[in-house]
Amino acid sequence: MGSTTSHDSAIRRWLLQKLHNKIGAPNVRVVVGDSAPFPDGAADVVATVRIDGWRTLASLALNPEVGFGEAYRDGRIEIEGDLLQLLDVVLGTMPESTKSGWYSRLFSRWLEWLQANTLRGSARNIHHHYDLSGDFYRLWLDSRLLYTCAYFPDPGATLEQAQIAKMDHVCRKIRLQPGERVVEAGCGWGALALHMAGQYGAKVRAFNISREQILVARDRAKREGLEKFVEFVEDDYRNISGRYDAFVSVGMLEHLGLDNYEGLGDVIHRTVGDSGRGLLHFIGRNQPRAFSPWIRKRIFPGAFAPSLAESQRVLEPHNFSVLDVENLRMHYARTLEFWLERYERAWDTVVKMYGVEFARAWRLYLAGSIASFRVGNLQLFQIVFAGSKCQQIPWTRAHVYSGESESEKKLWMRAIS
Amino acid sequence: MGSTTSHDSAIRRWLLQKLHNKIGAPNVRVVVGDSAPFPDGAADVVATVRIDGWRTLASLALNPEVGFGEAYRDGRIEIEGDLLQLLDVVLGTMPESTKSGWYSRLFSRWLEWLQANTLRGSARNIHHHYDLSGDFYRLWLDSRLLYTCAYFPDPGATLEQAQIAKMDHVCRKIRLQPGERVVEAGCGWGALALHMAGQYGAKVRAFNISREQILVARDRAKREGLEKFVEFVEDDYRNISGRYDAFVSVGMLEHLGLDNYEGLGDVIHRTVGDSGRGLLHFIGRNQPRAFSPWIRKRIFPGAFAPSLAESQRVLEPHNFSVLDVENLRMHYARTLEFWLERYERAWDTVVKMYGVEFARAWRLYLAGSIASFRVGNLQLFQIVFAGSKCQQIPWTRAHVYSGESESEKKLWMRAIS
Repeated sequence: MGSTTSHDSAIRRWLLQKLHNKIGAPNVRVVVGDSAPFPDGAADVVATVRIDGWRTLASLALNPEVGFGEAYRDGRIEIEGDLLQLLDVVLGTMPESTKSGWYSRLFSRWLEWLQANTLRGSARNIHHHYDLSGDFYRLWLDSRLLYTCAYFPDPGATLEQAQIAKMDHVCRKIRLQPGERVVEAGCGWGALALHMAGQYGAKVRAFNISREQILVARDRAKREGLEKFVEFVEDDYRNISGRYDAFVSVGMLEHLGLDNYEGLGDVIHRTVGDSGRGLLHFIGRNQPRAFSPWIRKRIFPGAFAPSLAESQRVLEPHNFSVLDVENLRMHYARTLEFWLERYERAWDTVVKMYGVEFARAWRLYLAGSIASFRVGNLQLFQIVFAGSKCQQIPWTRAHVYSGESESEKKLWMRAIS
Repeated sequence: MGSTTSHDSAIRRWLLQKLHNKIGAPNVRVVVGDSAPFPDGAADVVATVRIDGWRTLASLALNPEVGFGEAYRDGRIEIEGDLLQLLDVVLGTMPESTKSGWYSRLFSRWLEWLQANTLRGSARNIHHHYDLSGDFYRLWLDSRLLYTCAYFPDPGATLEQAQIAKMDHVCRKIRLQPGERVVEAGCGWGALALHMAGQYGAKVRAFNISREQILVARDRAKREGLEKFVEFVEDDYRNISGRYDAFVSVGMLEHLGLDNYEGLGDVIHRTVGDSGRGLLHFIGRNQPRAFSPWIRKRIFPGAFAPSLAESQRVLEPHNFSVLDVENLRMHYARTLEFWLERYERAWDTVVKMYGVEFARAWRLYLAGSIASFRVGNLQLFQIVFAGSKCQQIPWTRAHVYSGESESEKKLWMRAIS
């Protein structure tokens, strides 16, 4: 019997070694159950990963990403040390072949199939994510509830400053003028729409399928005295009607599949024609690749981040010109750092609201997203485009960086109104 | 006999009407031979197109672009009024279906086939374009001989100022630092390579297959005392060797076919690896489309302008991140306006050097390019990219617009050297 145990033990060490190599031999210590730490004599590790047993380890070997996500969520894996630092190191060392090899892709497809087949069975879990109340996001987003990448003019800006700067960045990029009509697809709780109306004098129609968000946005418009300038419409972007000078969408494209890109392009062309312009802001990739299967399973079903080339399926068919593309991935990492910090402070409340598994899953999602944007697994693209007959093409981009302050702008707007 | 003539005449008017509609019924007058002007009673036309006869008109009907190019070159078409204004109007009104319909594409392919088959026969003509001497370009380019789109910080800048500003724009975009190694693919007469070394303290290797240009560039390096900092290599970009911090290519991609993009990406990755960065500057398109067959026939054999999505075939396979894309098409229109103006002043010299057909072809090419960039048939993309492990990603793009003067920069460079 003694020899069998020793034989099993050797197989398990071999599995551990294989897994460690597979993720690029990061500088972390792994302890499985009550066995000895692996690797032997590892010093100065960034964190220790405690795995409850060999069954969990085997799930990691099969599919590192989903295996880790599920086990962390369920508490079968615990991290001693900094989770964020651990993810930074692992995502930094993990070879491309592990991230996107046939093995990982096969399991990604298998999970999609599994997910599709258990949708009814796990309806309660899925509803957790669809029906999350505004109170949950209020715990860790900025006061205006912008759930998209902020723009930090310098890295020391606060989250509140950076979200305002992001909205200005968007408005300056499209050179929004007083009196212009803007349509926004996917407006969240309405912050950008209200900003475009209140700070730039635009007339805005903003679409969102979430009734709860639309009600919050309408209430805000009322309180800010902007009801005549912003209309919040509870409807799908596909049903956008009317003509506008500009089309803006911040953080919606990543919830669409590639199959919907051409349709989105049709909507844009229908609304701004050949002479309008617009901006798309979305999470992207360096190469075509599926979104993290674990994030799709637990956080955002149906999420997809396109490569820059893939994103052009929206714009090319209608002959739109790309005027400007900016990659703000480091800004998304910074934004998420603020979110995670606030999230950790609200931990007990989150656990009370949705339970510990949910709280752990969202922690992993936020920390994993930080690491992904830091190491460049994910990108954040802002694309400014113009119709083929658009006459409002800025001569340079210097106006975006002119340093014109909000108060100066308001004075100027008052002067011309 | 009288009735036959009248019948022929009716057919010819019908052909004229059809052609006029095909190109979008622009506000121009057409006179064929000594027949009456068409359309009847056209007033305030931007120009009158005098066509020598019905045979030339028929060639226009078959393929408006090539037919016009060839006939203008040969003097079978004369323009009364402003050629540039005429092209602006025609390119502005011509429907997409005429520019890129099956009809036009079919003739484009037919011309390619014809061109391939007459290459030997028309070797003398082709050599005109390959062997053009530096003296020809000196007649109409800026003093540094930059044969690529300039950057006009404001539209009132001179061509000389704008070409220097373009070189600074490129260097600032990649945040070029003193002592860094840069490789340039397709360096023309060496202006940018010399600028990167002289103004930014970079160590540059610049590649070009044109012996004549390389000799001029080396001579300049000697005169400017920069031989130790810039090496001009007479070789194809595919043979670039060594490791560099940055890869720069301004105006070379448009001379490569799509089939060579992946190979170019391999060269870039071989030279800057995962931690380097670079810039590609090239003529592009809103949609995938072949380059003007006439330009390919008479000016640039093998030219191809990719859409933004197509250009990603260079960068995607090696996981490069796109950091920044800027569309400078209006700057290319302005650059070409300067070139055409200087070209017209040097007209007699050009005719003496290469004959009147050549002079007329290049005039049409320059004027047609202005119109194409103005109306948006052509785009000019500058793409900044970084390797997947690059640590030199600028936080924002504000540094490109900081207004730091050249003299300030030199002071700073002296201070740290």
